[in-house]
Amino acid sequence: MLTENQISDFSELLGKDNICIVMHKSPDGDTIGSSFALLYALKRMGKNAEIVCSDEIPDHFRFISDGIQYLDLIFEPETVVSVDLASEALFGEKYDYLSHRVDFAIDHHFSNTLYAKKTILSENTSSAGELMYELFKCSEIEIDKYIAEKLYIAISFDSGCFRYSNTSSFTHKAAADLLQFSFDASAINVKLFDSSSLAQLKLESEALNSVKQYKNNKISVVTVRYSQIKRLGVNENELGGLTAITRRIAGTVVGITIREKSDGEIKISLRSQQESPLPEFDVSSVASKFGGGGHVRAAGLSMNCSVEEAEKKIIDAVIEEWNRIYDNSRQ
Amino acid sequence: MLTENQISDFSELLGKDNICIVMHKSPDGDTIGSSFALLYALKRMGKNAEIVCSDEIPDHFRFISDGIQYLDLIFEPETVVSVDLASEALFGEKYDYLSHRVDFAIDHHFSNTLYAKKTILSENTSSAGELMYELFKCSEIEIDKYIAEKLYIAISFDSGCFRYSNTSSFTHKAAADLLQFSFDASAINVKLFDSSSLAQLKLESEALNSVKQYKNNKISVVTVRYSQIKRLGVNENELGGLTAITRRIAGTVVGITIREKSDGEIKISLRSQQESPLPEFDVSSVASKFGGGGHVRAAGLSMNCSVEEAEKKIIDAVIEEWNRIYDNSRQ
Repeated sequence: MLTENQISDFSELLGKDNICIVMHKSPDGDTIGSSFALLYALKRMGKNAEIVCSDEIPDHFRFISDGIQYLDLIFEPETVVSVDLASEALFGEKYDYLSHRVDFAIDHHFSNTLYAKKTILSENTSSAGELMYELFKCSEIEIDKYIAEKLYIAISFDSGCFRYSNTSSFTHKAAADLLQFSFDASAINVKLFDSSSLAQLKLESEALNSVKQYKNNKISVVTVRYSQIKRLGVNENELGGLTAITRRIAGTVVGITIREKSDGEIKISLRSQQESPLPEFDVSSVASKFGGGGHVRAAGLSMNCSVEEAEKKIIDAVIEEWNRIYDNSRQ
Repeated sequence: MLTENQISDFSELLGKDNICIVMHKSPDGDTIGSSFALLYALKRMGKNAEIVCSDEIPDHFRFISDGIQYLDLIFEPETVVSVDLASEALFGEKYDYLSHRVDFAIDHHFSNTLYAKKTILSENTSSAGELMYELFKCSEIEIDKYIAEKLYIAISFDSGCFRYSNTSSFTHKAAADLLQFSFDASAINVKLFDSSSLAQLKLESEALNSVKQYKNNKISVVTVRYSQIKRLGVNENELGGLTAITRRIAGTVVGITIREKSDGEIKISLRSQQESPLPEFDVSSVASKFGGGGHVRAAGLSMNCSVEEAEKKIIDAVIEEWNRIYDNSRQ
C-alpha cells in the first residue's frame, strides 16, 4: 500500500514538464517496462518526456522498448526521474552526471541509497513495475492496453514470472487487473524466459557441468569464461539467463554465478533460497562488501581481477557469512 | 464463470457420502493438489472420503500428497469423483474398473470424453485446481490455509507458474486470493519447477544436444533413450521437466519430445506456440491420431515400437499437419 506522501510525490511529478526518465545500466525487463509505461503516460498527458540509458537495449529486450536500441538525451531536462535504480553507481558511465540531480526516484530496492531529492520507495513490492502500477492506480493516469502490457512485462520479469518470493497476493492482483487488457502474456513470457538459442542452451549446459559445491552441496558455484561464450557464439547481451542458473540445482541454498566479460571484468550474481525454519541468507550483505547491491535473495557485484581470484574471494566471503549465520550448526 | 448447472452438480456431490476421488495415472501437481483440496474439504464436512491412484506418487510430488506414496481403496465407495481425468484411458490399470462408474468428473480438458454421469467441465480454465477454486467459492466450502496451498500448487503446476497461455486474468485473481493465506509460494515453485538434481540437469543437456529441426527450425524434436536415463542415474519418475523442454529453444513453434521408458514404451509429448498472426497448430489433433489427447498447445501420446519408428511416425504426422495448416506458405 502506498503512503499519502508517495501519492503526493507522484502527483507532484505529474505536475512537471520536460521530464527525463533514467533507466539503469544493463537495462532489464523491469526498468524498461516501467520506464516505457511512464513515458507513454506522460506523453499522453501532453508532456515533453524522454528516456535515457547509458547502455543499449539488448536485442531480446527490444520488444519492450518498441524496437528502440539507443536511448539518448533529446532535450535538456527540467525534471529527472530514475526508475528501478538503487544507487548512483547504476546510472552507468554515459549518464552518470544525471545521478547528482535526480528529482524523483521510483524504486523497490531496500538498498536504495536515497540519492534523489524525493524517493518513492516500496521495498515490499516485486518490481518497479508493480510500484508503477500502484502509483498509476492512485493517480489520474488511466491504464490502457499499451501501459498494461509494459507493466505486466516489468512485473513478470522481476518476479521470475510470479515464482520468486517477492511475488505477493498484490502482485497477482495487479496481474489479474492488467491481463483484462487482452494482450498475449504467454508470448511475452516465452520472450522473457523461454527463448534461448541453441548456443545459449549449450552454454548453460557447460555452465551447469562446471558446478562446484560447498557446505554439503548447499552452496553451488558456476563459472563461465569469456572463451566459452566466444566459442559457442553467444551474444554477450544475451547471458541474463545465467544469473539465476544455480536455482535449478536442487538443494542449493546459496548460488553463485561468476561470469567473465569480454573486457575482463568479472560479473558475479548471488541468489539465495530460504530453507525454513533456518534464517535467510542475505546475499545483498555479501554483495555490498564488494561494492555491489540488491535484495536479500538476489544481488550482484563486479570485480576487476582474474576469474580464479574472483572465485576465491567470493566463495570465501559467502562461506564466512554462512558460518556467521548458521554458526556451524548445519554442515 | 461457472454455470448454474455446474454449481448445482457440485452441490449434489457435496450431499453424497463415502466418496472416492480418482486421480489420473502418472499423477501430476494438478490432479494431486486438486484432489487433496477436495478430500480435505469433504472430510472437514464430516464425510467419509478417500483418494485412489493407479500409480504411486513420485518422490518430488509427495510434498503435495502430505508424504503419502500409495493411494489405495480404503472402503468400497458409494460415489466416485474423478479429478483432472480427460478420458477412461487415464484411470490406469489398477483403477480402470472405476472408470465405468464415475458419478462426477471435475475436469478442464476440452478433449474430455464425457465418460461420467455428470461432467463439471470448464475448458477455459488453466487447471482442475482453478476450477476447484471456483467451485469452492460458489459452495459452502470455506477456503483455509491447507486448501489454499493445495489449490495454489495445482494452479501453478498446470499454468507453468502462470506463464502458459491457459493463464487468464481469473487465474491471477484466484492466486491473489489464495496467497492471502500466508504460505511459502516461492518454496512451492522451487519444488515444482526449479529443483532438478545435477543428473537431471545433465540429462536435459544431452536431450537439448540431440535436437533435430525441421521446417526452418520451427519444429524441434528431442529424443531421450532409456540407456541415457539409466547411465546418468535419473529416476524415471522425475522426467516431467523433459515434456516441455522444446519450449526453451527459441523459434520453436511445434516441439516434440520422444522418451523411451524402461519397459520399452515410447512416451511422446507435443507442445506448440502460436506465431501470430498465423493460425494455431493444434497438437491435440495430432496426438488423437495415435490415441492420445490433451490441449491445443500441450498434448501427449504413447507408442509401442522402436524409438526410430516412433520418431519417424510422429515427425511425419506433425509435418503432414503442418503442411495442411500452413499450406506450404511458410517454409
